[in-house]
Amino acid sequence: MSASLSRPRVGVWLIGARGSVATTVVTGCAAVTAGLHPPTGMVTETPAFTDSGLPALSDLVFGGHDTLDCPLPKRAETLTAGGVLPPGTATAVTAELVAADREIRPGGPTPGDVGSETELITAFADDIRDFVHRQALERAVVVNVASTEPASQGGPGSPLPPSTLYALAALRAGCPYVNFTPSEGMHHPVAAREAERSGLPYAGRDGKTGQTLLRAVLGPMFAQRALTVRAWSGTNLLGGGDGAALADPAAAAAKNAGKERVLADTLGAVPEGEAHIDDVPALGDWKTAWDHIAFDGFLGTRMILQTIWQGCDSALAAPLVLDLARLTARAHEAGMSGPLGALGFYFKDPVGEGPVGLSEQYEELVRFGRSLGRADGEGRGARSVRDTEETGEAL
Amino acid sequence: MSASLSRPRVGVWLIGARGSVATTVVTGCAAVTAGLHPPTGMVTETPAFTDSGLPALSDLVFGGHDTLDCPLPKRAETLTAGGVLPPGTATAVTAELVAADREIRPGGPTPGDVGSETELITAFADDIRDFVHRQALERAVVVNVASTEPASQGGPGSPLPPSTLYALAALRAGCPYVNFTPSEGMHHPVAAREAERSGLPYAGRDGKTGQTLLRAVLGPMFAQRALTVRAWSGTNLLGGGDGAALADPAAAAAKNAGKERVLADTLGAVPEGEAHIDDVPALGDWKTAWDHIAFDGFLGTRMILQTIWQGCDSALAAPLVLDLARLTARAHEAGMSGPLGALGFYFKDPVGEGPVGLSEQYEELVRFGRSLGRADGEGRGARSVRDTEETGEAL
Amino acid sequence: MSASLSRPRVGVWLIGARGSVATTVVTGCAAVTAGLHPPTGMVTETPAFTDSGLPALSDLVFGGHDTLDCPLPKRAETLTAGGVLPPGTATAVTAELVAADREIRPGGPTPGDVGSETELITAFADDIRDFVHRQALERAVVVNVASTEPASQGGPGSPLPPSTLYALAALRAGCPYVNFTPSEGMHHPVAAREAERSGLPYAGRDGKTGQTLLRAVLGPMFAQRALTVRAWSGTNLLGGGDGAALADPAAAAAKNAGKERVLADTLGAVPEGEAHIDDVPALGDWKTAWDHIAFDGFLGTRMILQTIWQGCDSALAAPLVLDLARLTARAHEAGMSGPLGALGFYFKDPVGEGPVGLSEQYEELVRFGRSLGRADGEGRGARSVRDTEETGEAL
Amino acid sequence: MSASLSRPRVGVWLIGARGSVATTVVTGCAAVTAGLHPPTGMVTETPAFTDSGLPALSDLVFGGHDTLDCPLPKRAETLTAGGVLPPGTATAVTAELVAADREIRPGGPTPGDVGSETELITAFADDIRDFVHRQALERAVVVNVASTEPASQGGPGSPLPPSTLYALAALRAGCPYVNFTPSEGMHHPVAAREAERSGLPYAGRDGKTGQTLLRAVLGPMFAQRALTVRAWSGTNLLGGGDGAALADPAAAAAKNAGKERVLADTLGAVPEGEAHIDDVPALGDWKTAWDHIAFDGFLGTRMILQTIWQGCDSALAAPLVLDLARLTARAHEAGMSGPLGALGFYFKDPVGEGPVGLSEQYEELVRFGRSLGRADGEGRGARSVRDTEETGEAL
Repeated sequence: MSASLSRPRVGVWLIGARGSVATTVVTGCAAVTAGLHPPTGMVTETPAFTDSGLPALSDLVFGGHDTLDCPLPKRAETLTAGGVLPPGTATAVTAELVAADREIRPGGPTPGDVGSETELITAFADDIRDFVHRQALERAVVVNVASTEPASQGGPGSPLPPSTLYALAALRAGCPYVNFTPSEGMHHPVAAREAERSGLPYAGRDGKTGQTLLRAVLGPMFAQRALTVRAWSGTNLLGGGDGAALADPAAAAAKNAGKERVLADTLGAVPEGEAHIDDVPALGDWKTAWDHIAFDGFLGTRMILQTIWQGCDSALAAPLVLDLARLTARAHEAGMSGPLGALGFYFKDPVGEGPVGLSEQYEELVRFGRSLGRADGEGRGARSVRDTEETGEAL
Repeated sequence: MSASLSRPRVGVWLIGARGSVATTVVTGCAAVTAGLHPPTGMVTETPAFTDSGLPALSDLVFGGHDTLDCPLPKRAETLTAGGVLPPGTATAVTAELVAADREIRPGGPTPGDVGSETELITAFADDIRDFVHRQALERAVVVNVASTEPASQGGPGSPLPPSTLYALAALRAGCPYVNFTPSEGMHHPVAAREAERSGLPYAGRDGKTGQTLLRAVLGPMFAQRALTVRAWSGTNLLGGGDGAALADPAAAAAKNAGKERVLADTLGAVPEGEAHIDDVPALGDWKTAWDHIAFDGFLGTRMILQTIWQGCDSALAAPLVLDLARLTARAHEAGMSGPLGALGFYFKDPVGEGPVGLSEQYEELVRFGRSLGRADGEGRGARSVRDTEETGEAL
Repeated sequence: MSASLSRPRVGVWLIGARGSVATTVVTGCAAVTAGLHPPTGMVTETPAFTDSGLPALSDLVFGGHDTLDCPLPKRAETLTAGGVLPPGTATAVTAELVAADREIRPGGPTPGDVGSETELITAFADDIRDFVHRQALERAVVVNVASTEPASQGGPGSPLPPSTLYALAALRAGCPYVNFTPSEGMHHPVAAREAERSGLPYAGRDGKTGQTLLRAVLGPMFAQRALTVRAWSGTNLLGGGDGAALADPAAAAAKNAGKERVLADTLGAVPEGEAHIDDVPALGDWKTAWDHIAFDGFLGTRMILQTIWQGCDSALAAPLVLDLARLTARAHEAGMSGPLGALGFYFKDPVGEGPVGLSEQYEELVRFGRSLGRADGEGRGARSVRDTEETGEAL
Repeated sequence: MSASLSRPRVGVWLIGARGSVATTVVTGCAAVTAGLHPPTGMVTETPAFTDSGLPALSDLVFGGHDTLDCPLPKRAETLTAGGVLPPGTATAVTAELVAADREIRPGGPTPGDVGSETELITAFADDIRDFVHRQALERAVVVNVASTEPASQGGPGSPLPPSTLYALAALRAGCPYVNFTPSEGMHHPVAAREAERSGLPYAGRDGKTGQTLLRAVLGPMFAQRALTVRAWSGTNLLGGGDGAALADPAAAAAKNAGKERVLADTLGAVPEGEAHIDDVPALGDWKTAWDHIAFDGFLGTRMILQTIWQGCDSALAAPLVLDLARLTARAHEAGMSGPLGALGFYFKDPVGEGPVGLSEQYEELVRFGRSLGRADGEGRGARSVRDTEETGEAL
């Protein structure tokens, strides 16, 4: 008890709080805290971040919005049956799942909604503020892990996409914001203007979990070796909710834009080739990504690299979400604001400025971690944007 | 004419001068010089090295040792039939192939040899010196591109491996030395002592061309993402002379040691799994490498990455050999000596000190290129080893 | 000379006579006849067909229609540069290429055409008849190897697809017809009625060359082992003209229908999963097909088979086209008529009745070959449809 | 109760009764009988075998020999944790696992054994006979599913391999025998002589479960299409006990001989290429097999097929073991004797005569199933070997 009084607790407010990623985040945080599993996949648990002043995993408190109402323990059971969560783990942390479940509020807009956008934003912001007060949190970070929205066509006058409503609610509630999805969120012009004014730090977008993670190391390899990539083709097979969501061509287009950006950034040009995303319900939460890269060697010799990645997206995403929540909370505490370009390591389409190859992004992240350790931590506003220029990670 | 008088020419003395790699080196250098092909795969032709003061491709002169006597134009014809060289290229540069062929001397030791090791070294060194004088070269670099030797068992008193005889001949002739193969060369204690005394720069060993190139970017990816690699298994299929040479388990062991070192260096530990090298004559000079990587994600979720690399080793190696000859010649000119750790980008088992991930090695290489540009170039001896410490690339 | 008088020669009239497949057919037939290459890939050259009374390769005479006008020797040169034809082969058979080139007539309809469909059919039929008379052929077979047409939307009154115009011209000229493409050809109701009346044999459609060949053996494997296929996903990458043609979704739909039929036929149901066809010009005439098959084993255990096929479509198709021309010519000679169901071995979407697994189709083909050997060969009409019922291959 | 009196029950005596395969057999038979899972992977449960007079799954009674003593329910728990058995299944059939566990007797020879080979055989035969009497079985089939033995070097006088001791015990006890492993078993000359005299049917050897199953359909595909396979290379990665057993080169040699036989049988010649079996404990009971097939098409064009099979060996083997037990028991009942060549569908290295392609083997199996249905079933001896000649499946 005294611990919880003396150590400030940090909220993690998940948009899509009943999804596979969110469920894995909550289950995994509790399981690692309890010592049931090592923190595999969490970069912030490696020695490089020991002195960064990050909130402890045991100090994270979860809540969020979702339009569904399946209870988290039930969702965790389904994920266990699907092989995403190891047998026994969800049962061992039922208490934490129940606690998080109690902090989930209905999302929107849903078909029945009659309120205006402004009303929705206000209601969402109130939900977040209530969570912070009820749980006596020092601060909270809003993280979007909801299903990918269709790419917006939106001319002036068209409705704001839901992800942007939530992003605006985060700003309204005074919370840093992380967009782990390709949805528009803080990229919408309306939100971008608000973000600038808010003085809050934010990060995104579109987590770099599998195929794109690979591309972020293979692209630089070809470039550094002066090998000419002629065509880069790829197919993703995935089931689960994500597969169904991305079967919508507009949602797939949003997703693929990020993948393509990684190639363009690292190769200097977008090569020939398409990227497919297929909904294959039989695969459940597992994903297979095949990449076929045709490249030229010396004297134009044609060569080929193929990669096959078989992973579980939720298990790949969850530790990154925990990393991001901790890093962004600490950046907020250290008074940083604006786009956190130093978190490009985590994203396909990073905000702010930063290097494009994964290794350089990793080095940048480690520098950022060190700068967080040096920050005084006297809270938001204590450091101006100028102060952080030296490390270049937050503008 | 005045150009050739005023511009110093640099010799490239190839051990294994009639092999596939050497033939591709000579053909490719001429073809790129003639504008028949872009310099794909040559890092030293990218903008980062424009001001490094490297010798021009048109100033390189080729010669070497080999135990075979098939003329280079004939070898080039065979490589063209096998799809390694593009149709028409070898014919277009026949004159250059004939010229290089005239500078090839018999290698050894061969079964009939009766001379002592010392006699062989002296004879090889004389061949190299004769080449430098006859061609009026400013300097020459010795590059080992011969077939892989069996890993030496050698206790005291056992004969020196051929690669070491050539390395000692290079030192005797006052030439920098590059070992592109896994053979012992300058790593033999006898040669290592001589190298230290010689004040000459040297580099190696074992070119990082295909499967290991990949491992050098994938290994860091897993490490940086805190993903636990449990097993890394691989099979290489290759024909050509290399396939036959590596069918010898002792030669394969030498090759695999380098591959394993890359994993150990980048992952921090050697995971489970074996690496096979199969001789498959039907594949000719083409190589297929399959890698299967079993890794753990968050909460121990089992995931798998597989890669299939289909390339032509000679076409992958040749531009790197040209890079290394130019860089080492320039390092010699700049008075550097000892192991060139900054060339780790090119090798599985690099000499000297340096980073282990490919991206960091690339950055180091670029820094080295810049330091070469700043070097006064007043020739060997003008700068002491101490002078180069600042950039850390030559100790 | 006396040989050519005494041995009846057979025409092969290729629709798409300047395409990659046709060029490979003409080049390959000449090269095998000249003993330059073994007849790899030609089933009719195996011992099982020795006594089938097939026309000799040296007795085949080529001609055809095409809308392009690049000369065949030039096309063959391009295919040689692209690695489809081996170096030297096209040059060695230039005479035969020139001879075939002289027998190619302009195809259609082309944008400028003003004639009616009937006029086009008549003109095409005249071209074929002229060919037969000019070359003093005993008979000719018409084979469609043109680019895939978009799947017809065609309600009543819509124009006949070009492939159907050619099919009708073949009937008009009294020639057997083979459709090696997924285009409509003889499947159009108008042509189907004509075919029935004509008493001519015909075969098709859509050659089973690569990915579908594999599916025709893997599908039965799963079925025979009582393993439940849950999803079968695939991606095809191909360049060349075929890649561009199939980038048209309607053409791809036509192609995919055939692939799907093979799965439905052999598995008994169409599993989940999509099939993509991507135009990747960098691959030239080479094709890569990746298949991912998720299946259930005992107690529902999830297992996966993946296949990667890297082939050259023209080289796969050409020997089958030669097989089909010979078999269909002989069937015509033997008086067979109607759909040749016994040729299902060659097609994704076979006409007539026949087994669905490749092995059963092979056995059926061998039986058909034997029945051709027993046929009296007194020409068309000598055997009635009834006579062939016993083997079931031609109704 | 009355059911068990009126319906004859059949024993399945498993050599290696505590191994992964045996545990999956016992668990799966009970689970399918209980309706918990469909009989996926069991060919004998398909309509083609409805009238073959096979014993019902519910009439099978399990026992066996093993040198280990871990109880079956415990083994099943481990397999559940490893993902081989689905969650909940083993628990649901604990009673059946306990019942089978009670019928397991210690195997041998073990290091401490002092008895002669004859004594061991007698003891094993007594164990089997006791099982038959105690359980009041109509008959029992002995099936070897133990770990692969090293290939015997055995000259005259060397000890009989354990698998042969068990095979001789089966004959002594009057039981049909099935060898699902590559071990010598009934192939040893001593056992072969005994088998001939015994009048008992037997089958084997080496179950065709994964990579070889694929080869049995791909080999015929290449042969039927007259494509020349130049090299067939493969690597198997597997953990579990099987991986460790096959890490012994002599055991791997035994296993690979079967794989090679399938290629030789279906292609007509053994192509270039090696087959590796690697022990990768991290993979547990899962196996990955990569095959790389280099083949020539028309005019010598080089093409490549690669396959990647990811399966669980126990789940692949178990339904085949149940099939074989039922078919062999029924063959015994029908009075057949000698090698059951018609069961070649199941084996890499089949006894007796039979076709080599999987499809032909399947047809042969279906014919065999029909002949079993027609058999009078009056028990062993009722039909002579001659009587079964007509169908060719038992000589």
